[in-house]
This record gives sequence, C-alpha cells and structure tokens, in this order.
Amino acid sequence: MKTGPGRFFEDYRLGEVIAHAVPRTVGAGERALYHALYPARGAVHSSDEFARSVGLAASPLDDLIAFHMVFGKTVPDISLNAVANLGYAEGRWLKPVWPGDTLRAVSEVIGLKETSSGATGLVWVRTRGLDQRGEVVVEYVRWVMVRKRRREVDVPVHVPELAPVVAPETLVVPEGLDFSRYDFALAGERHRWGDYRPGEIIDHVDAVTVEEAEHMLATRLWQNTSKVHFDVGQREDGRRLIYGGHVISLARALSFNGLANAQFIVALNGGAHANPCFAGDTVRAWTEVLDRAEVAAPGVGALRLRLVATRGEAGALRGADGKYLPEVLLDLDYWALVPT
Amino acid sequence: MKTGPGRFFEDYRLGEVIAHAVPRTVGAGERALYHALYPARGAVHSSDEFARSVGLAASPLDDLIAFHMVFGKTVPDISLNAVANLGYAEGRWLKPVWPGDTLRAVSEVIGLKETSSGATGLVWVRTRGLDQRGEVVVEYVRWVMVRKRRREVDVPVHVPELAPVVAPETLVVPEGLDFSRYDFALAGERHRWGDYRPGEIIDHVDAVTVEEAEHMLATRLWQNTSKVHFDVGQREDGRRLIYGGHVISLARALSFNGLANAQFIVALNGGAHANPCFAGDTVRAWTEVLDRAEVAAPGVGALRLRLVATRGEAGALRGADGKYLPEVLLDLDYWALVPT
Amino acid sequence: MKTGPGRFFEDYRLGEVIAHAVPRTVGAGERALYHALYPARGAVHSSDEFARSVGLAASPLDDLIAFHMVFGKTVPDISLNAVANLGYAEGRWLKPVWPGDTLRAVSEVIGLKETSSGATGLVWVRTRGLDQRGEVVVEYVRWVMVRKRRREVDVPVHVPELAPVVAPETLVVPEGLDFSRYDFALAGERHRWGDYRPGEIIDHVDAVTVEEAEHMLATRLWQNTSKVHFDVGQREDGRRLIYGGHVISLARALSFNGLANAQFIVALNGGAHANPCFAGDTVRAWTEVLDRAEVAAPGVGALRLRLVATRGEAGALRGADGKYLPEVLLDLDYWALVPT
Repeated sequence: MKTGPGRFFEDYRLGEVIAHAVPRTVGAGERALYHALYPARGAVHSSDEFARSVGLAASPLDDLIAFHMVFGKTVPDISLNAVANLGYAEGRWLKPVWPGDTLRAVSEVIGLKETSSGATGLVWVRTRGLDQRGEVVVEYVRWVMVRKRRREVDVPVHVPELAPVVAPETLVVPEGLDFSRYDFALAGERHRWGDYRPGEIIDHVDAVTVEEAEHMLATRLWQNTSKVHFDVGQREDGRRLIYGGHVISLARALSFNGLANAQFIVALNGGAHANPCFAGDTVRAWTEVLDRAEVAAPGVGALRLRLVATRGEAGALRGADGKYLPEVLLDLDYWALVPT
Repeated sequence: MKTGPGRFFEDYRLGEVIAHAVPRTVGAGERALYHALYPARGAVHSSDEFARSVGLAASPLDDLIAFHMVFGKTVPDISLNAVANLGYAEGRWLKPVWPGDTLRAVSEVIGLKETSSGATGLVWVRTRGLDQRGEVVVEYVRWVMVRKRRREVDVPVHVPELAPVVAPETLVVPEGLDFSRYDFALAGERHRWGDYRPGEIIDHVDAVTVEEAEHMLATRLWQNTSKVHFDVGQREDGRRLIYGGHVISLARALSFNGLANAQFIVALNGGAHANPCFAGDTVRAWTEVLDRAEVAAPGVGALRLRLVATRGEAGALRGADGKYLPEVLLDLDYWALVPT
Repeated sequence: MKTGPGRFFEDYRLGEVIAHAVPRTVGAGERALYHALYPARGAVHSSDEFARSVGLAASPLDDLIAFHMVFGKTVPDISLNAVANLGYAEGRWLKPVWPGDTLRAVSEVIGLKETSSGATGLVWVRTRGLDQRGEVVVEYVRWVMVRKRRREVDVPVHVPELAPVVAPETLVVPEGLDFSRYDFALAGERHRWGDYRPGEIIDHVDAVTVEEAEHMLATRLWQNTSKVHFDVGQREDGRRLIYGGHVISLARALSFNGLANAQFIVALNGGAHANPCFAGDTVRAWTEVLDRAEVAAPGVGALRLRLVATRGEAGALRGADGKYLPEVLLDLDYWALVPT
C-alpha cells in the first residue's frame, strides 16, 4: 500500500512529536486570494503604506493565513480519521508572516483519553507553525475525537490542563508595532480600544451566501486534505462540509464592520464549530466584547472578543438546554490588538 | 453603534471632500486573479517582455484593476444607500499601476439634486485614485441615486456640467509608451488604428456564462462591500446582483477578439449599467467604433469605442421607446490607445 | 471582419511554423492559484526551502503550469475549429519555469491527413514553449481533428512517425537537481524509486467534485479561449466541457497520495481524454507503474507512470470492445523524477 489510512486513536503516544509534511512558501498570491475569498479589509493587511505607518516593514499576511496553513499540514496526521474537531486553546501568534516566508508544522501529543462510546478517543495536540528560521509564528492546542482501530486498546489516560484564556501579559505584539500615530479615517472606523466595553454586542451587519467553489478553493489553498470538504461521496447527505477555518476567516472578515481597528489576532482562547456549514448558507457574524487588557507597546491595547458566526439572522447563542442553537456555526474566543 | 448606516442624501455637502478608507497594495496576486476571473489577453498586461518592447519598465496591472480598486473604496461612503448607479463621465487614467503600488481614494461632492419622487436625491462625486506618492492614477465622475433619511430636506440644487466626451487632446499616454516597433503577431491581431472606421461594428464572438463564485471573488478582491452582491437576502427575488464593474471587465476582456490591440483604456466618456446581470447569464459583447484621434506618442493613436455587453445574442441597443433593450447589460464609452 | 474564424484543415501547410500570440509573464499569483485550483502538495513546488534542499535556486512553478500556458496559446491557431483533441506524444520538460519568466509558444505543422468522413482532417503539430531567453521550457506533439472548410481539398497526406515512449536517456533533469539528501518525511511519504514496481497499481484514494467556477477560472488563467469551456450555448446539451488539461492537473494533484515523491513531470509519452468531464463529476485517480529508468543525477530516478482519472469509482480502463469505459476521463502516460 503506497497510500496510508491515517492514524487511529491507538497510534498516538503521549509526548510524541509529529513533524508534518509539505513546507509551504507563501506570498503575494496567497495574499490576493485571501482578499478574493473573504471580505477582508483590515488596513494593516491590505496596505504596505499603512503597515509602515504603524511601525512594520511591510504588510504582513493575514494572521489566519498562518493559522490555516499550519492547520492544513496537520490534517493528514491528526484528523484524517477524526469524527469531530472539538476545540482550541492556548493559541498565540508569535510573529507576523511575510511574503516569501516558508511555513512548516510540528505537533506534540499532549493528551489522550478514550471516550465512553468505546469506538473513539480524544487526542490533544499542541501544534506549532515554524518559519524558515525555525522560529514559531503560531502555536495552538487542538483536540479531536479520533476513531479507534479496535475497541480494546491500552492507552493511559492523560487530560492536559489548558488555560481557559490566554493571559494578556503573555500576548506577543509584532516587533516594532506602534499605534500612536494610527490613522483611524484611513483604517475605516473611529472606534478606539477604550470605546469597547465588556458585555457590548456588535452586530456586523454584512452577510455572505457561500458557494461550493469558494470554500474548496480556500481549503485547497491551505493544503487541507480532509475528504469531506471536496467529495460529495463522503457524507450520507451528499453534501460537502465547509472547512471550519473557512467560517472563521469569513466571520473575522465580516467583523470589519464594527471592528475595523482590531488589526491583529494575537491569541485564540477557545473555539467551537457549533454546527456544520454548507454551500448555500448565508453567513452573518456578531461579536461580544469579553475583556480588555493593556499591552506594552505604544498606542496598543488588547480586546478579548467572542466572534459568533450564524447561518441566517444573528440571535441567541444557546437554547434552553444549554446547547448551541442550530443556526450557530462558530463560537470563537480571541484576543485582538486595537489602537488605544 | 459601532457600525455605521452609511450616508443618506442629506449627509452630503457640495464641495465636501471624502477620504475613503483602506488603502491597498496590489501586485502579482491581483494580476493573476484578473487573468483567472476574466478572459483577458492584452499583451501589454500579460507580458513583461511585451511591455518592455513598447517602452514600459514592466507589465502594468490592468487599467480596470485600478478602476475597480478605487471604486470599491468609495462604496461605503457613496453607494451604501444608493438605489442606482446612474452614470460615469470625465474618467481618465493618468498613470499605469505597477505591482507594489498602494492605492487610496478621495471623492469630492460636485453635485446634489433632489429627485421628483421625494424619497431620493442625486449625488455627483469626482473620485480620484492616488498611489503611494500621492499622484493620481485614475479619476472619474460618477453619480448615484441615494435614499433620503427624511422627505423634507434643505439641499441647494447643483447639477455639474460634465463633458459629453473626454477631449482627445487631454488623454494621457503612459510615460515612455512607444508603439513604433509593436509586434502585431505576438499581440494576436494585425489590425491597426487606421483599420478601424467610425461606425464600424465589431461582434466579439466569444461568450461567458457567469457563475456566482466568480463575481463574488472579483467583487471582494476590489473590496467592494455592497451587500447586494453577496447576500441573497438583500433583494426580493433572492438573487445576487453582479457588480457592474465585473460586467465591464468581462466585456472588455471579451473584446480582445477584434480589439486585441486596444491595449490601454485611457478615458471613460460615459457608461450605463443598462440592466442587472445575474449568475447564469451568458454574456457577450460588441463594439461600435465612435471616433479616432491622434495622440502625441510614437506609433500611438486613440480610438473612441462604445462597448456593449449583452445577455444572450448581441443585437440592437434600444427599443422603439428609446430605452435599452432588456438584454443589454452595459453601454460603455471609452478611449483606448492602439498602435497606428 | 476584425475577428477571425480560426483555421480549418486546408489552412495548414506541412512544415509551416506558427508563432502563437500573447506572451505571458508568470509568477507568485499563478503559483498560488494553482494551489487553490488543484489539491497540489508536491514539496518542491510548494516550498522554496525544500527546493533549495534539492539543489534548486527556489521553488519553480508546477510543470503543468508551463504546459497549460503553452497549450492555451495554441488554441486560437490550432484547435478553434477542432472537433477532438486526439493525442499527445514526445512531450518533454526541458527547463523549470520560475516566477518572473515570460512564456510564448511556437508550433510546427508536422502531419496532415484527411479523415474518411470527408468533413475533417487530422493535424499534427509539434509545439514548443519558450522563455524570455528563447530557450525551450516544454515541447510536445499534439494532434487534433479539425473541420474542413470544403469537402474537396488537395492536401498531401503526411503522418509523422512518433515515438511510442520518450526514451529515458533523453529525459532532461532540472539543472542542479540532487535528491541525495531528500527529506522524505517533509515531502509527505517514505516511498523511494525502488519501492515502485512495474505493474503496481496505486489507488490515490482522494476525490474532488468539480464546480463550473473552478474549471473556468483555471482555463482562463491559462488563456485558453476555446468556447466550449465557457459558453453554455456551444453544445447541444447546454453543458460546459471541462478543459482536458484541468483534468490532467486535478488527477496529477490527486496522485500525491501514493506518489508524493514523484516531484517532476519530465516527459509526456502519450495521453487520451477518454471521455468528457463536466461540473458535478467527482473525479478520482489511479496510477499504474509502467517502467523505471535510471537517470544521471545524484539520487534521482525516473518512473514511467500511467495516470488514469475516472468519474466515480476507479475501476477497469477499457471494456470488452477495447474502448475506454464511460467513467474514464483521462489516460496519461508520463515520466516523473523520484528520489532513489
């Protein structure tokens, strides 16, 4: 057999380090495609001039390009036999990615636990994306439910302790970033860090009806090989599941309207793909401001934001039973950098 | 409210200058996407080598990329509450845009007039696209019908006088352009400036059946945020309206077959989006040669062209009532540079 | 008439050399679009770092980008009035294409023969793609069935002798290529040249359900102007035929799973577009290892591979009548370079 069946639950060992395949050089093409695939309008990621005005050498690639590229590389080793992508934690962006950088990914298995069903197990991995200098550009913990090959396995239980939120004092600000002369008019909105209050809800107003070709173009661009996104024969209902990261990028781009100045994603506290998204869905987004924190860079503050993507009208998050409502696609908890 | 409702008719003041948000650096990615989105084959915009053979430093980005980018930036300030995009005039391309250039846009309100309905008003703006050196790369007048917030408003009427056609002596030829050693075989057609006669009609033969994913990718690439292009909930018929500029680029690209040597668009005399275009439409194009003019650059002449895009078979332009026939999508009047 | 009707059978002369129009500079944008359009994951074509580790200056563009670009240029002169694209032979890739290279194409008519129907004739051309230095980057023979203008024509028969397979000693290895320190883990699979045995069949497992927007984006990117790919009015069934080269790239990219180390396509021995492909088809691929050959470059071997793309489940190639089964889309015979 020249093709591999992917790993099953019992193939993982606690502490094991998996170097994922296919490094990738990113550049001007990925940048333009990101703008074509998502209604992204953040000024730092749109304009070299604007990026220079806030202390950077040029416009970096969108933070989520790094995330998706790294995530995509992990799929053949982590989630080919996954039943569900359960959560994220302790995600941090440590360096911007620039055109010409080459990304690769490494994951460490940090937790293992059989589920009560007997057919699956949970696998926690800490994944790091590295550039051509071997420096980490993004890292995050993800856990997935993976099929077992056999029902009876001998895997010691280890559930990692994960921080419920990335401590703001550990947020890494891009080197040189200085928002003290930030041009709010050119960025598209006047709202500063201090204008956002914990508890505040922002309806991002815009919506996009999603097409098959779009999510497949995106998912291939990130070299994510999960069959369910491409092949109508993979699900009983004959539908192609949209990669959860596509919904993340779509919601993040929609959040420009109300959060135009949330220029950088610097941490991922948690996230749930609450319900599957399919072509034909009209995706909207709203944000709840969860917290604010000060940051040791001139003119820069951090906002902790809950970004929710919904199918159809934005509304409540959970039903009386505590479960996500069926219209909810994404519930993402992240830290962003905003001018003060 | 962190999101804005957009401007209504009474929010504009004559002479007001609006600096539009989100500067954008364009490059190799936008160039490739333009070729993927439209059947564009113009040799100057396809090949660095060909561009150098006509006196340029390299292949510039398609003239319409500059137009769409600038137009897209104006949408949140000009046409978010527009009912109709009524016309263009006095458009000129003043400098080619090169990979690495950063574009921003500024509009001046040059005309205001209530309509007889009482619910809307007309707003004329002169928009300029500037590069990172602050030099104007493209400028044009556009007027739109915008909703009023209240029926009773106190806005003095001012209807600008607009030139029916850009005077050929004011056309700006890209610096260094020299068509005297133009390679017609490599460009794809043998027809010179002198071969085109006013009154001549050219059927461009080719056609493209348009898909939702394509026009949305394009419209996002230009960072045009108008909701009707993306969200099926915006129109009563549940259809997504295709951005008029997408039809312009499609028709222009289709016109290669018969106008392969019309290398540069240098002026926009006028234009009407005669009927809405939707996915599934099969778009064709024909051109009427309106005029010829001499230009002070070696081997370069100008043709004034009427470019008409239709849905289905190309045919007449207007019915007995003087109105555009329902098959007509676009009626665009422009000046192009052609080798003599 | 400013537009041409294309050439008919009797318009070709044996030995005639046709310089095709519209040179094209390729770069970072085409590279990213290739990754978005196809599930391509080859490490050399994904990563500058990996490419450097095998002796190249940087990551070249995918070998099939060169092929499609060159093929696209020939369409207006060779296949505008073609009824069928019948075969390929004697294809060789002579130089990698790098970002910034400009490609043009020249074809020589090497064979002509009327068909028994009286309505068409066969035209053989040897096409060469040249870069800005005038050096050949790819060459191949293709033959097509072309409509006649008149039934009675006076065209001497000449059927070229074509090699059934490109002799392995004539394969050209990219300058500097050295697989002796090849990183199999980073490339995604551990299989070496010696692990593949003639007669071995590899099912590539993955599948992609194809969308209209995708194949049109690709076909335009290669500036292929054949109407049947874009215009629903071209076929009686109202369907848009997918460019055969799109199926080649799709199948080649799917073959990563099992052939991740087949990094370069260096020769095209033959190929048949067995049945038309349409949007909605779910494309799979399998490969038969046909032969192995040694190559005079450190750590590099050649595999001769039959790549078959099918609609739906992979299975047999031909029926009892010797004809391709209706599920077979592509039967491609090529040489690839693989680490030993």
